[in-house]
Amino acid sequence: MADDSIAYAASNRARFLGELTKLLRIPSISTLSAHRPDMERAAGWLREKLTSIGVTAEIIGGNGHPLVYGEWLGAPGAPTILAYGHYDVQPVDPIELWHSPPFEPAARDGSIYARGASDDKGQLMTLILAAESIMRSRGSLPVNIKFLIEGEEEAGGAVVTAYVSSHAERLQADAAQVADTAMFAPGIPTLETGLRGNVYTEIYARGAAHDLHSGLYGGVAPNPLNALAHVIAGLKDLNGHITIPGLYDDVRMPDSAVLDSWRQLPYDPAMTEAEMGVTHLTGEQGFTPLERMWARPTLDVHGIQGGFTGEGAKTVIPAEASAKISMRLVPEQRWERIFELYRERVLQLAPPGIELEVRLIHGGNAVVVPAESRFVSAAQTALERTFGRPAVLTRSGGSIPIVGTLKEAVGLESVLMGWGLPDDNLHAPNEKLSLDNFYRGIDATIRFWQIVGGLAE
Amino acid sequence: MADDSIAYAASNRARFLGELTKLLRIPSISTLSAHRPDMERAAGWLREKLTSIGVTAEIIGGNGHPLVYGEWLGAPGAPTILAYGHYDVQPVDPIELWHSPPFEPAARDGSIYARGASDDKGQLMTLILAAESIMRSRGSLPVNIKFLIEGEEEAGGAVVTAYVSSHAERLQADAAQVADTAMFAPGIPTLETGLRGNVYTEIYARGAAHDLHSGLYGGVAPNPLNALAHVIAGLKDLNGHITIPGLYDDVRMPDSAVLDSWRQLPYDPAMTEAEMGVTHLTGEQGFTPLERMWARPTLDVHGIQGGFTGEGAKTVIPAEASAKISMRLVPEQRWERIFELYRERVLQLAPPGIELEVRLIHGGNAVVVPAESRFVSAAQTALERTFGRPAVLTRSGGSIPIVGTLKEAVGLESVLMGWGLPDDNLHAPNEKLSLDNFYRGIDATIRFWQIVGGLAE
Repeated sequence: MADDSIAYAASNRARFLGELTKLLRIPSISTLSAHRPDMERAAGWLREKLTSIGVTAEIIGGNGHPLVYGEWLGAPGAPTILAYGHYDVQPVDPIELWHSPPFEPAARDGSIYARGASDDKGQLMTLILAAESIMRSRGSLPVNIKFLIEGEEEAGGAVVTAYVSSHAERLQADAAQVADTAMFAPGIPTLETGLRGNVYTEIYARGAAHDLHSGLYGGVAPNPLNALAHVIAGLKDLNGHITIPGLYDDVRMPDSAVLDSWRQLPYDPAMTEAEMGVTHLTGEQGFTPLERMWARPTLDVHGIQGGFTGEGAKTVIPAEASAKISMRLVPEQRWERIFELYRERVLQLAPPGIELEVRLIHGGNAVVVPAESRFVSAAQTALERTFGRPAVLTRSGGSIPIVGTLKEAVGLESVLMGWGLPDDNLHAPNEKLSLDNFYRGIDATIRFWQIVGGLAE
Repeated sequence: MADDSIAYAASNRARFLGELTKLLRIPSISTLSAHRPDMERAAGWLREKLTSIGVTAEIIGGNGHPLVYGEWLGAPGAPTILAYGHYDVQPVDPIELWHSPPFEPAARDGSIYARGASDDKGQLMTLILAAESIMRSRGSLPVNIKFLIEGEEEAGGAVVTAYVSSHAERLQADAAQVADTAMFAPGIPTLETGLRGNVYTEIYARGAAHDLHSGLYGGVAPNPLNALAHVIAGLKDLNGHITIPGLYDDVRMPDSAVLDSWRQLPYDPAMTEAEMGVTHLTGEQGFTPLERMWARPTLDVHGIQGGFTGEGAKTVIPAEASAKISMRLVPEQRWERIFELYRERVLQLAPPGIELEVRLIHGGNAVVVPAESRFVSAAQTALERTFGRPAVLTRSGGSIPIVGTLKEAVGLESVLMGWGLPDDNLHAPNEKLSLDNFYRGIDATIRFWQIVGGLAE
């Protein structure tokens, strides 16, 4: 019965928090090579933890940071869930803005503060501790579980992508469960049902053969920075409308039922304004803020390189410059086609004397989780029982590459139940995770597996 | 008689080259603090050299690199020339592209190769060695000379600007002579008679209170980089026309006589194309390349900062970004007024949700040397006698700040005779100075002073 496992989780909360604290103390920053030993410590700690609860676990090494893979397949005939999380964390700069050291977890105000608390060690641990709770209270799980835990989510995810693509057989399951998302608002259980795709590009602009002095040559010299500005201004207008011919051809708005459900969310644009620290939201006319974030393509510049950006003045016309630009895509758009349309438009905008080159950095299609899936339905029930109110179905404007990879390489749909909050300061100082969400995340995961495995309805 | 001094110079060429070589061996890079002792060595060497030829010389220390000031005022009633040069040099990166080490001067193919050969130690030395030639051959100079030699020309020139502004009395003269320019082409003696002014600015753009993830917030977030692109694209069109209302109101083209003289210069746009390494020149329609460089305002972006420019992809919408932008001005434009027009235009272009701030870094008006000045006329005669053909009167698109400073603080017009060539690789690897130009520069300077002082006509 459910109660035994939930009761086990309830009576072990202090120890669970202690274990999360141990994992959070390991500074497993994947993008800094000095932390390589910490990556191995974190992976080793997870392997041991999984083994200790009866999951067969191994470290999968290779070129990048190790994967931790574990499986418990003792429920023949029952569905199999591939449970995903990541043990790597973001860097901690600017360190001086942290109120307590990032790798000395501190509980205060109902949350635990540490780098990785919400993204993603705290969420990853809900999966493992849910498994422990059921195993210890019942001796076995009602579903088969395959744990896929990576150490490069913040560093591009190359290892997990390659592994999933080449091990589709081993990773076969009935659904994936990704514990790396946020709730819509405090107290509101949330299932994410859609993620935008993206195309990330770089434009190189070349003018003269070498840098020039703007005094001597200004007036006859091609300027790659002015050129990039012209190109960028020609890609999106001030109303947030992308001015690439054909880009909106395949864009379809979600069903009116979905749009209606979004309008019924307890959403106030002031929430988003407060998160961003702005007085009003900008963007495409004629769409609500949620529609603009979840169901409309966007285009943003991320950085422009070239010339002189130090203190003071240098009158250089650089020989070359480059810009990083990405687009977010909606489900009907194919990223390869969008990249082509974008590339054509950029080249068409090339000013006289400037040679442009458009490079693809990566692309991925949007994902929509079918709302009629029995796994989504089981998750909704588990969430409602745990939080005492129905789950809301949202989308995210962002992308979670593993979701697309699992779908494309293994054919898995993902259930996206997450325990973060919008103000958890991911990738920023004072990252935190609500303790209440941590414990409820364990409970909801227990219930989800019980329902999927037929132990509960 | 002129011949004695010219003959002295002719018979001392080898030693003169040896002395230049000694000065070139001192790596007096003003922008690198490790070279502070070299700056003092170079200044000390120049003070001693001046003293050795009978010029009263002193080192003027202060916050920055020292000035060397020298004067010989033994010609009462004769005109006084303020002779300017600089002993500091540019850094040498990329060092691997030098064919011989930058501070081991090497004579080959009729030139001396070293950092500072042309900019400006070789040119500076023509002034000192001309003075030596006359002093040693006649025992006195036909004019009074004040030497003003700075060590921060490549580093902003703050020391000399402050000194000139506060010592106008001491620096009183009848004209300034600046030895820091280039000839129009090999063998063609050149007087520069105009320099463009400039206004160097920085635009700060602010959006959200902190960096945002473009997946989550793309579609409602203001993007300071997109905003800067929009602003920049709104400042100049693809035809090179600046789209700031009122900017051209005060622009007057030079007299038709001046424009005619430019058309008669032995100029082929292919020269400029080759210098720049381009296949054709861009810029404002309806004007010749020389007009575009010398007599038309321009606007160029020098760098854009903000967001992510490292390798790979980061989907950041930066909270702020900035751009360095400067304009070159023609004589009738006042830089303060142009800055105001520019600022108004920039603010008018601000996209929704973006706060813009426009900061001035520095400004200076264009300079035109009156062609009817007796010093210009004397220089023309000296140049024609030395090179065997009439001097051409050109302008430069660049600015030489000391020229404006001497005019504004001391009331001096500058004579700009220079011995560089367009391919001398200033600020680049393999800087050089033609030895022929070095020796002729000494001769022309001797003759210039003789004519100004009434020793010759």
